[in-house]
Amino acid sequence: MSITPTPADKFTFGLWTVGWQGRDPFGDATRPALDPVETVTRLAELGAYGITFHDDDLIPFGSSDAEREAIIKRFRQALDTAGLKVPMATTNLFTHPVFKDGGFTSNDRDIRRYALRKVIRNIDLAAELGATTYVAWGGREGAESGAAKDIRVALDRLKEAFDLLGDYVVSQGYDMRFAIEPKPNEPRGDILLPTVGHALAFINELEHADRVGLNPEVGHEQMAGLNFPHGIAQALWHGKLFHIDLNGQSGIKYDQDLRFGAGDLRQAFWLVDLLESSDYQGPRHFDFKPPRTEDFDGVWASAAGCMRNYLILKERALAFRADPAVQEALRAARLNELAQPTLNKGETAADLLADRSAFEDFDVEAAAARGMAFEQLDQLAMDHLLGVR
Amino acid sequence: MSITPTPADKFTFGLWTVGWQGRDPFGDATRPALDPVETVTRLAELGAYGITFHDDDLIPFGSSDAEREAIIKRFRQALDTAGLKVPMATTNLFTHPVFKDGGFTSNDRDIRRYALRKVIRNIDLAAELGATTYVAWGGREGAESGAAKDIRVALDRLKEAFDLLGDYVVSQGYDMRFAIEPKPNEPRGDILLPTVGHALAFINELEHADRVGLNPEVGHEQMAGLNFPHGIAQALWHGKLFHIDLNGQSGIKYDQDLRFGAGDLRQAFWLVDLLESSDYQGPRHFDFKPPRTEDFDGVWASAAGCMRNYLILKERALAFRADPAVQEALRAARLNELAQPTLNKGETAADLLADRSAFEDFDVEAAAARGMAFEQLDQLAMDHLLGVR
Amino acid sequence: MSITPTPADKFTFGLWTVGWQGRDPFGDATRPALDPVETVTRLAELGAYGITFHDDDLIPFGSSDAEREAIIKRFRQALDTAGLKVPMATTNLFTHPVFKDGGFTSNDRDIRRYALRKVIRNIDLAAELGATTYVAWGGREGAESGAAKDIRVALDRLKEAFDLLGDYVVSQGYDMRFAIEPKPNEPRGDILLPTVGHALAFINELEHADRVGLNPEVGHEQMAGLNFPHGIAQALWHGKLFHIDLNGQSGIKYDQDLRFGAGDLRQAFWLVDLLESSDYQGPRHFDFKPPRTEDFDGVWASAAGCMRNYLILKERALAFRADPAVQEALRAARLNELAQPTLNKGETAADLLADRSAFEDFDVEAAAARGMAFEQLDQLAMDHLLGVR
Amino acid sequence: MSITPTPADKFTFGLWTVGWQGRDPFGDATRPALDPVETVTRLAELGAYGITFHDDDLIPFGSSDAEREAIIKRFRQALDTAGLKVPMATTNLFTHPVFKDGGFTSNDRDIRRYALRKVIRNIDLAAELGATTYVAWGGREGAESGAAKDIRVALDRLKEAFDLLGDYVVSQGYDMRFAIEPKPNEPRGDILLPTVGHALAFINELEHADRVGLNPEVGHEQMAGLNFPHGIAQALWHGKLFHIDLNGQSGIKYDQDLRFGAGDLRQAFWLVDLLESSDYQGPRHFDFKPPRTEDFDGVWASAAGCMRNYLILKERALAFRADPAVQEALRAARLNELAQPTLNKGETAADLLADRSAFEDFDVEAAAARGMAFEQLDQLAMDHLLGVR
Repeated sequence: MSITPTPADKFTFGLWTVGWQGRDPFGDATRPALDPVETVTRLAELGAYGITFHDDDLIPFGSSDAEREAIIKRFRQALDTAGLKVPMATTNLFTHPVFKDGGFTSNDRDIRRYALRKVIRNIDLAAELGATTYVAWGGREGAESGAAKDIRVALDRLKEAFDLLGDYVVSQGYDMRFAIEPKPNEPRGDILLPTVGHALAFINELEHADRVGLNPEVGHEQMAGLNFPHGIAQALWHGKLFHIDLNGQSGIKYDQDLRFGAGDLRQAFWLVDLLESSDYQGPRHFDFKPPRTEDFDGVWASAAGCMRNYLILKERALAFRADPAVQEALRAARLNELAQPTLNKGETAADLLADRSAFEDFDVEAAAARGMAFEQLDQLAMDHLLGVR
Repeated sequence: MSITPTPADKFTFGLWTVGWQGRDPFGDATRPALDPVETVTRLAELGAYGITFHDDDLIPFGSSDAEREAIIKRFRQALDTAGLKVPMATTNLFTHPVFKDGGFTSNDRDIRRYALRKVIRNIDLAAELGATTYVAWGGREGAESGAAKDIRVALDRLKEAFDLLGDYVVSQGYDMRFAIEPKPNEPRGDILLPTVGHALAFINELEHADRVGLNPEVGHEQMAGLNFPHGIAQALWHGKLFHIDLNGQSGIKYDQDLRFGAGDLRQAFWLVDLLESSDYQGPRHFDFKPPRTEDFDGVWASAAGCMRNYLILKERALAFRADPAVQEALRAARLNELAQPTLNKGETAADLLADRSAFEDFDVEAAAARGMAFEQLDQLAMDHLLGVR
Repeated sequence: MSITPTPADKFTFGLWTVGWQGRDPFGDATRPALDPVETVTRLAELGAYGITFHDDDLIPFGSSDAEREAIIKRFRQALDTAGLKVPMATTNLFTHPVFKDGGFTSNDRDIRRYALRKVIRNIDLAAELGATTYVAWGGREGAESGAAKDIRVALDRLKEAFDLLGDYVVSQGYDMRFAIEPKPNEPRGDILLPTVGHALAFINELEHADRVGLNPEVGHEQMAGLNFPHGIAQALWHGKLFHIDLNGQSGIKYDQDLRFGAGDLRQAFWLVDLLESSDYQGPRHFDFKPPRTEDFDGVWASAAGCMRNYLILKERALAFRADPAVQEALRAARLNELAQPTLNKGETAADLLADRSAFEDFDVEAAAARGMAFEQLDQLAMDHLLGVR
Repeated sequence: MSITPTPADKFTFGLWTVGWQGRDPFGDATRPALDPVETVTRLAELGAYGITFHDDDLIPFGSSDAEREAIIKRFRQALDTAGLKVPMATTNLFTHPVFKDGGFTSNDRDIRRYALRKVIRNIDLAAELGATTYVAWGGREGAESGAAKDIRVALDRLKEAFDLLGDYVVSQGYDMRFAIEPKPNEPRGDILLPTVGHALAFINELEHADRVGLNPEVGHEQMAGLNFPHGIAQALWHGKLFHIDLNGQSGIKYDQDLRFGAGDLRQAFWLVDLLESSDYQGPRHFDFKPPRTEDFDGVWASAAGCMRNYLILKERALAFRADPAVQEALRAARLNELAQPTLNKGETAADLLADRSAFEDFDVEAAAARGMAFEQLDQLAMDHLLGVR
């Protein structure tokens, strides 16, 4: 198996990732702006499948219509030349100060209307470029203080926005689904829909619930100390993994956006193991930031590292699952029994109550004495991850 | 307004709270067992409305049927004498070693069946004692290592359990709803349904979704660094706040179960503000642990402190909302505008697109220049909390 | 007691605090630049005692010597007019991209030399303006990846820098001490001297250890989940609290720099209680950021709130300590016994071994049964904090 | 290179690790007690070098003198037969309820005296068994509430204790050093000396500072979100790494005590890289808890996994350092320049000020433009860790 990426691996990158200039809360840009066309060319050379963008990544905020058209035309040519797809696009509702209190849930109604228009405008472009997923990260939909936002009312506004956008996409006949990206905090003190769970719950209340799913990001869940593969498993269970943002994070702190594999390597392994055994067919999208210590050589090395680490982990996960010793260890840990329904076919509560072996005659102490054999299994996983089997 | 609790305040306590003997991961019990009858008497004297219990809190694991009956009879008499209600009950699926890999999602099928039977048995008792809420905390439904639990399959088992329990309650004609209690970790490395959000999402997949809601606990959400009032607001928004566990937690660390008010005092204030302005009519249930440094005087002082702090915060929250200066500050922060729908009545996407004032003619810079006036508002809240207005 | 600030309260602010323009990792400035002279005027009106600055806050990076002189002259006049002091100054070794790998511990030697020169230059200005404390925050002395920095070697470089700066200050006869400001992470993945403890330990290895102490910041320790008052108590115990940065932080996440009192209010109370009962005579320095949602009205409201909250908490802490019921509760909790040495005067290990009452005849069970009475005491503290006693 | 452990690897285990019965805050023991003699035998078979213990691990609390002697005699015979050493011992000052407010800093003076006696008694045994390191973990030296402990006074008591124990060890002529083990919280809300840094600072104030160092534990520092290899590097820099506790932890949460390698695998790699390149010659001591899901097969598998993972990581770290491409990448990242003093030999501040190339003529922009080449280096480390080079 090869660890050299090809378009078949479906690796995609945001324009804003390799294009990040390195501005952080305490420092100015360390790298010049990157021409989107160069990004397209370089990523294609590295083996990527596609590219994604926020409206303002591609078309600077405030561009005239003519500038806009020229930029789009040039970008399309570059995509065609390089053979890169645009499977996803999204909107920047956070950089300009007008969004300082959010977009869809800003306390100011006119700003909410403006935000909706900005999104619709870019949805049109996304559809034109062939994107089938539209990501919504509500990074500024939140608050730092308790009375500044009535959360229930803000959720009403958020629902109103997604319902309208769903209407619009349907009315235009776009083949497009929405993917909400949760994040617990930063840049706001607390953000609405802080985790995969909160966003999954929210979606159920939407008019176009079937058209709305998730775009979870590794680091965002880990910023809440949550197990990312567990969150993805639940999203898959609900049929709502529409897209995914891969990167790295070293624990609960500011949003690091390290390259994939950096940060929690073991979770990265289990994530790849899960994705590759699931029916998720979408892009493996990297949403990372090459550290601001790096020049462009470092930027491309970092991008290449994301793909390389995914492929190494994929190789290891497949070997893990194929290993007869692992399969035996999984049986010893009774994963096969977990897969068996708890109730017999057609069994009712009354039937269960009538089964004395389930309670009255159940040997609790004997059952308690069984070891689960999880440590042997986990060491086998470690051996595969580290390549010593 | 009085800060002396009365039954009208609907304060309830778990038997296991004041009854906690102080065993922790590194230490043995520091207090003797407390007779549930004494607990009933003392809490009634302190002004509580009711009491709640796990099956094993009241009836020691392994009691004979005769012992069980005697215990229940004596407990009912104490309740009648003291005038305390039992609005909620729950099951212990975590103390006995048989549950070391969970109850409803243990890899061992016979343990899952036993767990269901243990729950059903206590549901019968709960119904008999008049409880209308049955709490399910799945503290051991989780894992420490990646292959030990197939999360999607485990969620299938969890759904199977709640579907069966729903069937049972309906079949018995019980006036009873279920309330799931999320927790991110401890005692397992990662727990299924780690947050309010994940549990809300899960409920949507259940057969008896209308009968299942949440029992969020202050400290559990804060163990994931999440804003508890925000989580409760979302639960209310979904119509799913069925019960609540009040306590205190000092940040992201082990589960502290401090008395209510200890830990994050400002979030406690916003929580009370939210509950008292919502349609939540259920018990204010304290699920805390008097620190193991305390003797029984300290235990009762701690229990009294929970209620006292709630009532002080309630008084302050009501004064905050009634203050004309606050109402003015809320307007200055445009909370009234947030309450206004973003779209005009009947407005469609096409209508919005036709509104040039929303985009083409929108003065972005002017809108960006408006201050949100949140700091003035938050300082007013601080003044009210601290009682200096 | 008044909660209106006066210079006697020794409240100071960094130029960069109210002057923060609101750039964050995801957003552009929301406020225009603030003229330092206006800052001086406004803070004086609000009751502040003094002002502090990074070199580049006052004198834009790259100014000519003539510009520099003009700026300084104008600033001094403003200070004189307003009657504000400059008790502290510090250096910006983080904004310019040249410091992307740190200043004193950059892997590049010429950058380290440049950093030292930049610091020395501003020390001269600080001395000229009468500052007696020079703060050193090494926000970029750190790394994101394991091999990028040899920590032991980097500590050698850090020591080299402080030794040289100590030499310089002594050689110039400046009445100036250094205060190191620890922080665990952000903007680097991990920062050298991440906590109060690490910095205290480091100081012991310096040539001019007596001249170097700490400038701990509330939020920085809380970003590591540490108890800030405990850290300050240890710094005081070592005689090393040279300066302090007051602000607010809501748990383990990005550096929030909320106004003092926001965030963990109970720790703020215990901090003020500690400071006011200690021999710390230095400034109460606010290092906060008015949220970027605010316009200048909000900025000044936020600054005023910092001072107001300190004074409210001071009033409450003094009342707490003066309350006879509290004094009784402290005795019940045996704080007086903690203050008594464990050994008798002159007692040796041999003497202790000979004391049978200490071990052989010690009634362990009886001692274990004593309650510590901490909950009663803590509820009294809560009552005082909330102003209900 | 072999990944089969031998005594030359100096792997040691606490009796309480494999002997942990699985009691946790929510559950009873899942495993029977383990005979220390069996532990000795089994660990020797697995390739361990030695064993360590708390007094009460070996000799149950409250044993008579005769029982004590018999236990010790039998234990010594087992050690001799198995060829295991006892390089370290420690005291249990946390399990018995008498220590509910701590040992050396309990508010109760008689308990502090009792604690000292309990420690001295076990120091004698430790010396008799040949231990040269005595660990002190002050797990209950702390508080849950603000007024319950005067931290400065408690530090006085802590110093008093270590000074006395130092006196005692010197007076007895024992070849023994103390190693303080920091921990931020759990089982107390906040613990004194919460991190490696705080403990290092404290040691400087002790009478026998030269005889006191650290025993840092992986998970304890990670519970504060700190980088463990960085902490160890600082401890080494101060000459204070006297012992080390190896285990695993998955981020900021309760103390997990996973087997070494589990949890943060990349930090484990950098830790082994650091230890193996340092002058630390002491034991590689595992302080972990086999999960309570496991039976004894799982316990021994978990113990074996600790050693196996250490040896795999050692092999990988040595290969990383030996790889010419890595050495080149380290040069590209200017680690060699970091190792060069910032000042020329004998250079003074005056000399530096006279060097115009350091400031006046320094090309800041050119220096800022240099990339640090850290991502290439870190990917090489990843490749080595994963065994793909």
